Amino acid sequence: MYGVTPIGRVWSPWREAEGTPIQPAFAREAEGEVEIFPEFREGLADLEGFERIWILYWFHRAGSVRLTVVPYRDRRPRGVFATRAPVRPNPLGLSCVRLLEMRRAEGILRVAGLDILDGTPVLDLKPYVPEFDAYPAARCGWYEDAAGGDTYADGRFHEG
Amino acid sequence: MYGVTPIGRVWSPWREAEGTPIQPAFAREAEGEVEIFPEFREGLADLEGFERIWILYWFHRAGSVRLTVVPYRDRRPRGVFATRAPVRPNPLGLSCVRLLEMRRAEGILRVAGLDILDGTPVLDLKPYVPEFDAYPAARCGWYEDAAGGDTYADGRFHEG
Repeated sequence: MYGVTPIGRVWSPWREAEGTPIQPAFAREAEGEVEIFPEFREGLADLEGFERIWILYWFHRAGSVRLTVVPYRDRRPRGVFATRAPVRPNPLGLSCVRLLEMRRAEGILRVAGLDILDGTPVLDLKPYVPEFDAYPAARCGWYEDAAGGDTYADGRFHEG
Repeated sequence: MYGVTPIGRVWSPWREAEGTPIQPAFAREAEGEVEIFPEFREGLADLEGFERIWILYWFHRAGSVRLTVVPYRDRRPRGVFATRAPVRPNPLGLSCVRLLEMRRAEGILRVAGLDILDGTPVLDLKPYVPEFDAYPAARCGWYEDAAGGDTYADGRFHEG
């Protein structure tokens, strides 16, 4: 068991799971802010040059762990590690958002493509580097064949 | 403070930080295995169709936290959140590797492009979905202008 501590929080238009886009790709216009707490702001230096950043966060509203889920984009049960659903053994979220502006002294990052609930604890930020992260042609299993399904969340993976 | 529990571990040719590739992109041929512990193996279903997966892991050999670092690919100090260095407030690692084979009953995933130290605790696996994760043209700040530098680690961010 290891301990993680929030380094900040998300300020987002999404207050409830229901209606929240399930991925930044379905939330291109959704803007919000990441606030980094004062003691960590030194670590933000040089981040403003990156067009995109990874946010690693804690799914604080996730329901209890399930190893098999029916993901939003599909209608069949899938192993949770083959999905991005929040009800994972370690409820760690990962989203790639666009960095619009950083006001480092205030610890504020304005971002677009936000699919994260308001108040979500932020654990880490990383720069998005295409050389490490971009594989546009990677095959993606059930997701390619999925029936379509929803691009917005309902309540199925969240606490009331 | 939240608690995370390993769901598995990495079996890798890299036993020491020194000489380990700093990213999967610099370790294309390095093969190894991810072992998922028995109680979590149900969650692996359907992952075999994905060409690439994200491994989220715990930098268990990281040295003490630093908010400013000189990254491997550069020669100037940078904010740690603008780098992928392990000495972060929450030592969470993120690597995109190629999935070569999965033997689900044994909980073994054979992967290529491994830049992770042997014995590293695995916290989560996620499918790589280009629609969510691939932004090949994203600008990437200091990394674009970096002097070049090393693609293999030395000991600077690790405990002895």
